[in-house]
Amino acid sequence: MPIFQKARELSVIQSVSSVLGWEQETYLPPAGSGFRADQLSWLAARGHELATSDAWQADLESAENADDGNDPTLTANLRELRRQFDRATKLPVELVARETSATSLAKNAWAEARRNSDFSAFAPHFEPLLGIAREKAELWGYEGEPYDALLESYERATSTAALAAIFDGIRPDLRDIAAKAVEKSSANPVSLPPGPYPVAAQQSLNAKIAEDVGFDFTAGRIDTTTHPFCTTLGPRDVRLTTRYDESDFTSSLFGILHETGHGLYSQGLPAADFGLPSGSSVSLGIHESQSRLWENHVGRSRPFWETWYPVACETFPQLADLPLDDFMAFLHRAAYSPIRVESDEATYDLHILLRFGIERALVRGDIQVKDVPAVWNETFNDLFGFTPENDASGCLQDIHWAMGGLGYFATYSLGNINSAQLFAAAMQNPDIAADAQNANYSKLLDWLRKNIHTHGSILDPSELIEQATGKPPTPNDYLTHLKTRYI
Amino acid sequence: MPIFQKARELSVIQSVSSVLGWEQETYLPPAGSGFRADQLSWLAARGHELATSDAWQADLESAENADDGNDPTLTANLRELRRQFDRATKLPVELVARETSATSLAKNAWAEARRNSDFSAFAPHFEPLLGIAREKAELWGYEGEPYDALLESYERATSTAALAAIFDGIRPDLRDIAAKAVEKSSANPVSLPPGPYPVAAQQSLNAKIAEDVGFDFTAGRIDTTTHPFCTTLGPRDVRLTTRYDESDFTSSLFGILHETGHGLYSQGLPAADFGLPSGSSVSLGIHESQSRLWENHVGRSRPFWETWYPVACETFPQLADLPLDDFMAFLHRAAYSPIRVESDEATYDLHILLRFGIERALVRGDIQVKDVPAVWNETFNDLFGFTPENDASGCLQDIHWAMGGLGYFATYSLGNINSAQLFAAAMQNPDIAADAQNANYSKLLDWLRKNIHTHGSILDPSELIEQATGKPPTPNDYLTHLKTRYI
Repeated sequence: MPIFQKARELSVIQSVSSVLGWEQETYLPPAGSGFRADQLSWLAARGHELATSDAWQADLESAENADDGNDPTLTANLRELRRQFDRATKLPVELVARETSATSLAKNAWAEARRNSDFSAFAPHFEPLLGIAREKAELWGYEGEPYDALLESYERATSTAALAAIFDGIRPDLRDIAAKAVEKSSANPVSLPPGPYPVAAQQSLNAKIAEDVGFDFTAGRIDTTTHPFCTTLGPRDVRLTTRYDESDFTSSLFGILHETGHGLYSQGLPAADFGLPSGSSVSLGIHESQSRLWENHVGRSRPFWETWYPVACETFPQLADLPLDDFMAFLHRAAYSPIRVESDEATYDLHILLRFGIERALVRGDIQVKDVPAVWNETFNDLFGFTPENDASGCLQDIHWAMGGLGYFATYSLGNINSAQLFAAAMQNPDIAADAQNANYSKLLDWLRKNIHTHGSILDPSELIEQATGKPPTPNDYLTHLKTRYI
Repeated sequence: MPIFQKARELSVIQSVSSVLGWEQETYLPPAGSGFRADQLSWLAARGHELATSDAWQADLESAENADDGNDPTLTANLRELRRQFDRATKLPVELVARETSATSLAKNAWAEARRNSDFSAFAPHFEPLLGIAREKAELWGYEGEPYDALLESYERATSTAALAAIFDGIRPDLRDIAAKAVEKSSANPVSLPPGPYPVAAQQSLNAKIAEDVGFDFTAGRIDTTTHPFCTTLGPRDVRLTTRYDESDFTSSLFGILHETGHGLYSQGLPAADFGLPSGSSVSLGIHESQSRLWENHVGRSRPFWETWYPVACETFPQLADLPLDDFMAFLHRAAYSPIRVESDEATYDLHILLRFGIERALVRGDIQVKDVPAVWNETFNDLFGFTPENDASGCLQDIHWAMGGLGYFATYSLGNINSAQLFAAAMQNPDIAADAQNANYSKLLDWLRKNIHTHGSILDPSELIEQATGKPPTPNDYLTHLKTRYI
C-alpha cells in the first residue's frame, strides 16, 4: 500500500537520524558536532517534507477510502497515520521554525542560568516557549483544556483532568510512603563497601544480566554515555547506554536494567511492521512501564539477588563483607533529594506531581513564568518538608522546559503506575510467579511480549493496560507495591 | 552560489552515508545489517537524484555562464563539478541498477569461489562486470583506449599508455630490488620477541604516535575493524581504524601510521570548502602518497625509531632483548608472498604490475576472463619466481574485481611513487630534514599542508606533484629509495 511505503520510508529517514544521534552521544569527536547538526537538520527537513506532503495526504486518503474495515490492524494503522498527519500539518512551517530557534536559544540560556542558579535569566527564554506551546495546543485542538493537546504528544488518548485526578488521589499516600521510607532508611543506614568497582567488571556483569533477562545482543549493544538512554536504530538494532561510577556498581547496573526494559519492548515490537503504527511503541507511559518493571519490580526484588548476588560477590570481592540482607536494604534505601534524577523509588513521584502541577498551571495561565521559583519552592516544601537551596537544585534542574517539552514529565509516573499493574497481573500466573522466585524471567518476558510488545501502537495505552490486566489503569497496585517494599 | 549550495548538500548526504558505513564496520550488531543496507540505499538514491537533477544542471550552467575567469579557484571548482556531472549523467539509470545488482551477486560468488579456490565459479559473474565496465568506458568516452575511462574514476587526467610506460620502465628494477631484498632478509632472519603485546598497550602507543605526527584527536578518533581504513565523516571529523595482533605490535602500528597519513590529508583539506572540489582530495594516487609517506618514509626510518623505540621498549618490556639494529632489520625484512596485502615494501609493487597488466588486457579484449588464472600464474612466476598454490592465493585473493573496481589497483603504486618524490623534495629543505633526523615532523607536515593538502582538488594530480617537487611525476626517487633501503 503506497501510504505504508511512505511511512516505512519516513522510518528509514528517522532511523538514520537516530544512528547519527546515537553516534553523537557515544563517539563523535568534539570538533565534529557542528557538521553533525547540519546532517541532522537535513534529515529532519526531508522527514518533515515527506510526512506533510500532498502525496502523503493523497495516499492516506486513498487508503482510507479503500478500507472496508475487515482488517482491524489496517484500520488502526490508518487511524494512527491520520492522527499523526493531522497533528504534523496543523502546525505552520513558520511556527516550527520559530520553535526550533527558540529552543536552541533557550537550551543555552538554561545551561547558563542553571550554572548561575538564576531563574530570572532563563525566564525570558521560557516565556516564548510557553507561548508557542499554547499556540500549538490551539492549533492541534483539545476537548478539555489546552494542556490535553500537549500531553497527547507523549501519551495519546488521555486527559489532563484524568491525570490530575489520579495524581491528586495518590498524593497523600505517596507523601506518607516517602516520609516513612526516609525515616526507616535513616534509622538503619547501609552503604556499599568502598570501591573501586572496576568499569570492565561492571560491564561484564551488566551484560550477563541483560542477556539473562532476554536482551538480544545480536540485535543490540551497550555503549557508554554521560546520560543513559535506549534508542532504536532499526527493526533489529537497539542500543542501550549507561555510565559508570567506580564507587557504586549498582548505578550502572540499574541504569542498564532500566534501559534493558526499554530495549526488550523495542526488540519485541513486530519487526515486519517497523515504521507502521502496528510496529511502533504506543506511548511514553507504556515505554516507561517496561523500563520500570525490569528495574524495580524485577531488579530490586530479593529473588533476583538471591541468584545474582553470589555472581556480584565473585565479580567484586569486597562485597564478601556485606550480607545479602544489608545489600537489599541498600537497594531499598530512601532519602529526600532536591534532585529528581538522584531520587529513589520511594520519593520519585513527588517530583513528578510537583512538575505536573506547575506545567498545568502555567498553560492554564493560573500562574506566570516569573512565579515558578516561588511556586516550586512552596509546593516542594509541602511535599518534601524542606525547600531547595537554590534555583539550580530547584526549578532549573531539568532541561525539559528549555526543549519545549511541556507534557512530558507526567509519563514518568504513568510508567511507574503501569509497571506495577502489569507486574501484579503477570504474577497472577502461578508459573510466571514460581519462575520469578528463581530469578527466571523468560515466562514473564513472554507475557509482556504477548500482552504489550506485539500490539505495537494499535490499542490506546489505557485499552492496552485493561486488555493485559483485566482492569482499567489504576494506581492501586503501585501504592500496594510501594507500601509493601518501603513501609 | 546555488550550484555550490547543491554540492554542499550532496556532501551532507554522502557524509551521512559515511557515518552509517563507518558504524557498520565498527559497532553495528549483526542483525542490524539488513536495515542498514536499506538506510544506505535510500541515501544513495537521494544523492544520485540530486547530483543528476535538472536543477543541478541549470545551476551549473548559470554559474559557468557567469564565470568571468577572474577567480581561478572558482573556475577550477566549476570545471570539476562539470566533469563529475557529465560522468554521472552519461550512465543511464538502467546501467547503474544493473551494475549494483551484478556486483552484489558477484561479491557473494567471489567469496564462495575463493573459499573453494575455484576461479571458474567466479568467472560467470566477472564476465558481466567486465562487460559493464566496457559499456561505461564507451559512455564516458576516452582518448586512447577504454581503460583510460576506468582509470579516470580513481585518478583523473592520466592515461593507460602513460601508466604502462612507467610500470614497464620500473619493472626490471623492481624485480631486481625485490629479489635482492628477499635474499638479504633470508640470509639474516630476525623476528620479534614473543608476545603477547597487549591490545590496550598497542592502542596507547599508536595514539601517542598518531598525535605526535599531527593527527588532531579533537577532530577524529581511532576504532577497531577487521580491515583498517580511514573515512571522513565531516569537515572536522576523520576516523581511522586498525586491527590488533597480540603477537606483533607493528601490525596495528603501521596500519595506524598508514591511515594517519590519509587522515592528515583529510584534516588538512580546506574545511570551509568541504563538499566543493577545492575542499576535496584530488585522487587515490595522491591520497595513497600521503599514507605511504608516513607509513614508509617516516615510520620505517631509523631516526623515527631512535626516538620511538625507547618508548616502545617501555610499553612492551620484552623488546629489551632486541637491539634497535635488529628491530630495524625486522621492519625492513622482505619475503615473497603470493598475497598482496601480506607483502612488504620491497615486493608490493610487483603485485600491482601483475594486476594492471591483466586488467588492461581484459578490457582491450587481448585475453578472456577464462584465461585469467593461467595468465596470472605465468606472470606471477615471471615476477616472483614461483607460482601461487591455488586460485585462492592467486587470482581470487582480492575483492576489487567483484566490486567492479577495474582501474583501482594502479593507484597503489602511483601512491608509492608519489610518496617518494614528495618526501625527497621535502627533504631538500634543510630545516625539514634536520627536524626529521630528530623525529620531529611538524615542518614536514607544514610542507605537505602547503604543497598538497590545501590545494584540494584544484590541480590535476600530475600538476600538483610538479608544483610541489619542481618536476613532473617520475619513479626515480622511488627506485632510489627502495635501492637505498633494500639492497
